Amino acid sequence: MKILEGGITAATGFLANGIACGLKKRKKDLALVVSEGPCTFAGSFTTNLVKAAPVLWDQSLVRTQETVRAILINSGNANACTGEQGSRDTRSMASLAALSLTERNLGTTANEVLVCSTGVIGVPLPMEIIEKGIGQITKNLKATKEAAFDAAQAICTTDTFTKEVAVEVMIGDKAVRIGGMAKGSGMIHPNMATMLSFITTDAKVSKKSLQALLGESVVDSYNMISVDGDTSTNDTVLVLANAQSGAPLIHEESPEWDSFKEAFLFVHTALAKAIVRDGEGAGKFIEVTVTGAMDKASAQGLARSVVSSNLVKAAFFGSDANWGRILCAMGYSGSAFDPNTVDLSFSSEKGSIDVLLGGQPIAFDEKKAKSILLEREVMVHAKVGDGPGTGTAWGCDLSYEYVRINGDYRS
Amino acid sequence: MKILEGGITAATGFLANGIACGLKKRKKDLALVVSEGPCTFAGSFTTNLVKAAPVLWDQSLVRTQETVRAILINSGNANACTGEQGSRDTRSMASLAALSLTERNLGTTANEVLVCSTGVIGVPLPMEIIEKGIGQITKNLKATKEAAFDAAQAICTTDTFTKEVAVEVMIGDKAVRIGGMAKGSGMIHPNMATMLSFITTDAKVSKKSLQALLGESVVDSYNMISVDGDTSTNDTVLVLANAQSGAPLIHEESPEWDSFKEAFLFVHTALAKAIVRDGEGAGKFIEVTVTGAMDKASAQGLARSVVSSNLVKAAFFGSDANWGRILCAMGYSGSAFDPNTVDLSFSSEKGSIDVLLGGQPIAFDEKKAKSILLEREVMVHAKVGDGPGTGTAWGCDLSYEYVRINGDYRS
Repeated sequence: MKILEGGITAATGFLANGIACGLKKRKKDLALVVSEGPCTFAGSFTTNLVKAAPVLWDQSLVRTQETVRAILINSGNANACTGEQGSRDTRSMASLAALSLTERNLGTTANEVLVCSTGVIGVPLPMEIIEKGIGQITKNLKATKEAAFDAAQAICTTDTFTKEVAVEVMIGDKAVRIGGMAKGSGMIHPNMATMLSFITTDAKVSKKSLQALLGESVVDSYNMISVDGDTSTNDTVLVLANAQSGAPLIHEESPEWDSFKEAFLFVHTALAKAIVRDGEGAGKFIEVTVTGAMDKASAQGLARSVVSSNLVKAAFFGSDANWGRILCAMGYSGSAFDPNTVDLSFSSEKGSIDVLLGGQPIAFDEKKAKSILLEREVMVHAKVGDGPGTGTAWGCDLSYEYVRINGDYRS
Repeated sequence: MKILEGGITAATGFLANGIACGLKKRKKDLALVVSEGPCTFAGSFTTNLVKAAPVLWDQSLVRTQETVRAILINSGNANACTGEQGSRDTRSMASLAALSLTERNLGTTANEVLVCSTGVIGVPLPMEIIEKGIGQITKNLKATKEAAFDAAQAICTTDTFTKEVAVEVMIGDKAVRIGGMAKGSGMIHPNMATMLSFITTDAKVSKKSLQALLGESVVDSYNMISVDGDTSTNDTVLVLANAQSGAPLIHEESPEWDSFKEAFLFVHTALAKAIVRDGEGAGKFIEVTVTGAMDKASAQGLARSVVSSNLVKAAFFGSDANWGRILCAMGYSGSAFDPNTVDLSFSSEKGSIDVLLGGQPIAFDEKKAKSILLEREVMVHAKVGDGPGTGTAWGCDLSYEYVRINGDYRS
């Protein structure tokens, strides 16, 4: 697997653009990703009972369409809790984009346009602004790195940096590429899906294989991150595959499936980790690995409970080796383990320190612990027993800045 | 039901004291509550898999003892994650207290002394300090309001005020009293029990009736509050009943059971509400009532999810009428409801404002909303349908101060 520059346009045959259409004050707020030809596709969506209108639209396309051509994304307004009007607006967005693409010789129907929205909840979309924006954004679709970057910028809300990744793997003698972009950075506690993440690939994969693979990958990537414990109404991951690499069809029985799968998961995990790295107000990136658990699900449950704990996150903000809070969060995770057999250690570029051995506290050098925890990337390793289960979760600290951002988000 | 002054000594025959024995720098840190005669008792404990040594001790007494005499509580050290030593230390605390009480003509055995600890996790108890403290605290046990206040002070950690309550109800022609004290104020997301809360009553109730009543009351009081989503390792509610009112035995079939039950729940709810009012860093008290749900459990689940959401809490910190976050939190609560039939309103002493009607956003006066939300006590009412289920939860805002307190708790 080779890591490439670029993002959503890295795979052959994908065009993109991102513009400022006026939903946000000055920043880019409308993105479009289009394939030159039809794509098999897969989606994973929020488990929140309150689903934004575009989520319902995309879910219906996943159920009914064999292929799609484009994804239209706006930031600055989530089109969630907007009633009937919200659904009509989403359909209009798809129709307007299909119409405009067809005028530019990228013949598309409304049912081939996936739609995503992110931003404030409960405010109707200003459709005249979006309509004008759609007319403009289709003019400059390009397959360049710059166009991918523009699109990655346009999907951001409180994000402080764009999140892009691309890789290449060989399928037979053909190079296949997988690229993607994502946005965070609050209301992040994905469950079965997450925030917005978009992946394109020029591999030839069936819709069924793609959906199964996405389901598997989501469990180990987005579902293992948390910024604030709030599962959004708009979480969406979409994958488009347009087969333009010329590589043969791959599926679960292909000899190259494992390396494709590895590359695919790499892309999702890289984007998921970028999201917590850029969590609202985050100053620290925290990786929690649990080993020796009964099974993988149990290890993942323990790890995720730790990165989701407000008290653990606040302790990391203060670079405080308050390991009791880690054990406490493991204790209420719902996963079974024996507290009397836990080994716990912290590590970072500054070294590693054990704080608990076989459930017994160890007198440790507080100064050394502080120097380890003051780093921007800190690892926690909990060995809970001798089982085969391993899991890793990623999170960030809880800072004054998180409270500031969310105390006055709408203004 | 009459509300009285005082707390843990309001019921006849209960003595208390609270002293500074040296676990904390200057503040009181050791409390003792003793009954002049044997008490039936009940306990409810944390569901965290990681249980502090005193929790395990109290649970074993609930299983094996018919009556107890005293509760010894220290703050400043949770005696959690302290291994074998922790269990030995808890047993020593009970033995030392029993010995010292016997010397003072309050003949007690170790198995009649419940023990609670609260404070930092993972540090062994300094037993020589506690031993000295126990010798001292038994000297000045009194049935006064002042003694109750001393005890209520001694169980506090980051609490900014003491939490006491007492009421009186008539059982036959006898006045029966129920009094209590509690402490918060971080690691508060109780599940089946909570933080530390102690109730005494001079009613005559069997152990079995008392335990059943406590189980019921906990569901509607402590289990409906959240400060930070972290379920502690030490949560404990203990109730002692010494029968000294002279009132006849009451049980589920007694005519006065309902008024006793009402008074009992009132005491628990008052303490639970005091805990969130004093949540770490809290500037606002938030009450969320859900009506029209399928059933009570479903309404309670929705209400509790709202008060537990970091994003909702941060919006209250900013007095921001960001109702979308409330709907989002209801959506991931796990309770079923139809988002398209929700009415939502905010209210406070400054008035009331509707923001959502039948799932449709209402254009509302932002200035009026701000003035309502700027109050220290804010109510949210969500009517989710036409079902009979109603539930209320209590929470607080998420502030800079919460992050500051927990970024450096151990120092």
